[in-house]
Amino acid sequence: MPYYIGDVIKDPKKLIARTPEKFEETGIKVRLNTHVEGIEADRGEILLTGGERLSYDVLVMGTGAEATLPDIPGTMQDGIFTLKNLRDGINIRKYIKENDCRKAVIVGAGFIAMEMSEALRNLDLETSIVYRGELPVKKWDPVFSGMVLEELTKNGVSFIAHNSPVAVEKGSDARLCLITDKGRIETDIIIFALGVKPNTRLAREAGLTTGKSGAIEVDPSQHTSREEIFAVGDCCESYNRVSKKWVYIPLGDMANKQGRVAGRNIAGYPLVFPGVVGAQSFKIFDLEVAMTGLDEKMAEQSGYSPAGNVIWGSPVARSMNIGQKLGLKLIADRGSGKLLGAQAVGQSGAVSRINVLSACLWSGIGLDEIGYMDLAYSPYFSGAWDMIHTAAQILEKKL
Amino acid sequence: MPYYIGDVIKDPKKLIARTPEKFEETGIKVRLNTHVEGIEADRGEILLTGGERLSYDVLVMGTGAEATLPDIPGTMQDGIFTLKNLRDGINIRKYIKENDCRKAVIVGAGFIAMEMSEALRNLDLETSIVYRGELPVKKWDPVFSGMVLEELTKNGVSFIAHNSPVAVEKGSDARLCLITDKGRIETDIIIFALGVKPNTRLAREAGLTTGKSGAIEVDPSQHTSREEIFAVGDCCESYNRVSKKWVYIPLGDMANKQGRVAGRNIAGYPLVFPGVVGAQSFKIFDLEVAMTGLDEKMAEQSGYSPAGNVIWGSPVARSMNIGQKLGLKLIADRGSGKLLGAQAVGQSGAVSRINVLSACLWSGIGLDEIGYMDLAYSPYFSGAWDMIHTAAQILEKKL
Repeated sequence: MPYYIGDVIKDPKKLIARTPEKFEETGIKVRLNTHVEGIEADRGEILLTGGERLSYDVLVMGTGAEATLPDIPGTMQDGIFTLKNLRDGINIRKYIKENDCRKAVIVGAGFIAMEMSEALRNLDLETSIVYRGELPVKKWDPVFSGMVLEELTKNGVSFIAHNSPVAVEKGSDARLCLITDKGRIETDIIIFALGVKPNTRLAREAGLTTGKSGAIEVDPSQHTSREEIFAVGDCCESYNRVSKKWVYIPLGDMANKQGRVAGRNIAGYPLVFPGVVGAQSFKIFDLEVAMTGLDEKMAEQSGYSPAGNVIWGSPVARSMNIGQKLGLKLIADRGSGKLLGAQAVGQSGAVSRINVLSACLWSGIGLDEIGYMDLAYSPYFSGAWDMIHTAAQILEKKL
Repeated sequence: MPYYIGDVIKDPKKLIARTPEKFEETGIKVRLNTHVEGIEADRGEILLTGGERLSYDVLVMGTGAEATLPDIPGTMQDGIFTLKNLRDGINIRKYIKENDCRKAVIVGAGFIAMEMSEALRNLDLETSIVYRGELPVKKWDPVFSGMVLEELTKNGVSFIAHNSPVAVEKGSDARLCLITDKGRIETDIIIFALGVKPNTRLAREAGLTTGKSGAIEVDPSQHTSREEIFAVGDCCESYNRVSKKWVYIPLGDMANKQGRVAGRNIAGYPLVFPGVVGAQSFKIFDLEVAMTGLDEKMAEQSGYSPAGNVIWGSPVARSMNIGQKLGLKLIADRGSGKLLGAQAVGQSGAVSRINVLSACLWSGIGLDEIGYMDLAYSPYFSGAWDMIHTAAQILEKKL
């Protein structure tokens, strides 16, 4: 009988369909509040807290990732959070309500920080983002990061640049005080959004190979370095079809896909995970922010000779005159003319363009074809020349 | 010196950027209100009304298409229109205003009919669509046509099915009366939206080859059967990459692309038009309606063994609960597993899916890859499994 070991959260809003009872109906035994202390791979056993052992023929590692806390004093106090899973979200909301929080600080400026800033503003908290760099979401081109900054400011989020956290202390006006290298920020709650690292202790202790990224090495069937042990999701690497490298890119949609691939292989219906191109998106207030593929730096590191160009236009035909501005950046290889990556930011139409360009990256086609690709034109949805066409044609001339 | 011969409409709203003056600034001589009576291809001359001749080294045919009127009595009266170009639109609006029209009838149920019905309702006209078939937009699956019908009805457009026009007479309550094989419909204005046919008289008389579709045959560089004569847009055929056939698919975005391809080739910068996949879309009130590639019937005619399946879901993550329903149909080949076509209808997210699937069709990839393709996931824009993934996986099982 297969076991599922781990947490199952009964969400008050029933966001999660699979309760323990539902699992068990399908013949899967669920062990909640159970911790795995170690894997004895040569014996095919896992060791639970308290000494119990379970034997296995096949083992799936879905140990995920952990949000990182900075190595500074004071982070173990109440009111300090990271956000990785649903329970974290529930706990943050509960803490804000129970402690009548008025001020919030988010440390970090990636897309978890962005999404949290909107959530906190929606709860009417005075919200600040503290970041060591100049602009938020640094994976995007500075012109796009600048648009994100503008959107934050417009919606009452303070962006405190060039500040690195040094310590957390008790506050005087508020519950806590974040000490940075530049000053002191009083706040009732602090959310560290500094990224995640894969949970690989069990894997490493069991002798499984980890990659350069630090995550568990897998093959396209999700096998680890041991045939009978699979790894999926935020604890393992994924193959990037554009950089042709195994990378660590922990995102929920890939975890879903890898889980299904492992399941199929275990059940005897072979399937390979065809890899990723790095498509990702988030919404920040009224802005869609999306990217796919590689930026210039990643492209260079992957042996390409990249060129990039940003264009501005309208997500719909200009005759519709909805007054929205969409920015689209393409990155391509000078040698082959192939698309390597794309970024888009705007009130609408950014994600849809990035998804089309992700499909183009998937197949590895060049700017020459993208510039003349057949897309479903109607003035409500694009110009007769979509911004994708224009961007591809302009960049092609620059290669 | 190059000549442009044809109409240039000075639109009151300046939708058209190229006025005759702008043309001439670029060194192109514009001849308005000038009709070409014939092409003497062997002499490299065109013959204008009145007997003037112009010689050419290179000639571009952009003769477009003509909206068809049915061969019934009474269609030459005032108040009867077709809609092909901007001037038609301006004339229709003017006629409605000057004659204080209250009732409108549209004959036909393709996407021009759909768009016109919305425009007429926006002008507060009592609007009916008269159609010989059962459901509107018959290129789409009946479940989707049914959704379109529901949207028409919800917005006060009457859909009069199974009626074919027989004659137009003077009306008694209203200005006109459309006589059908089933009855009489009083109306102030009638718009025939029965499709277009390519304007090929000049081409045929000049000895240029036309294809099975009736439109001018071209090669991928837009040459006609004579090297020095090019044809572009609604008067010529396009290569469909999915059916691998030359087809007649008169759409504005393709005309733009073909025009640029011909221009590049004439100017000595060779370029081929890479073909179409049949992507198209329209908006009808609050509904996005889109398709790409082939339907089952076209697929069979192209030698495939197609299977299709419709799924229903949400354009965004279910946890966002926006209450919108999106239908997505995929059609694939049983033999190869390749995607052949797709259709989508919903309040949002239909066109964006169809564009991604157009990019998939462009490269000719299979359902196996589409089911696991990397798209930019965020709950605001899709589930962790996008409907594209789900639709591909379900159809793959059915092949």
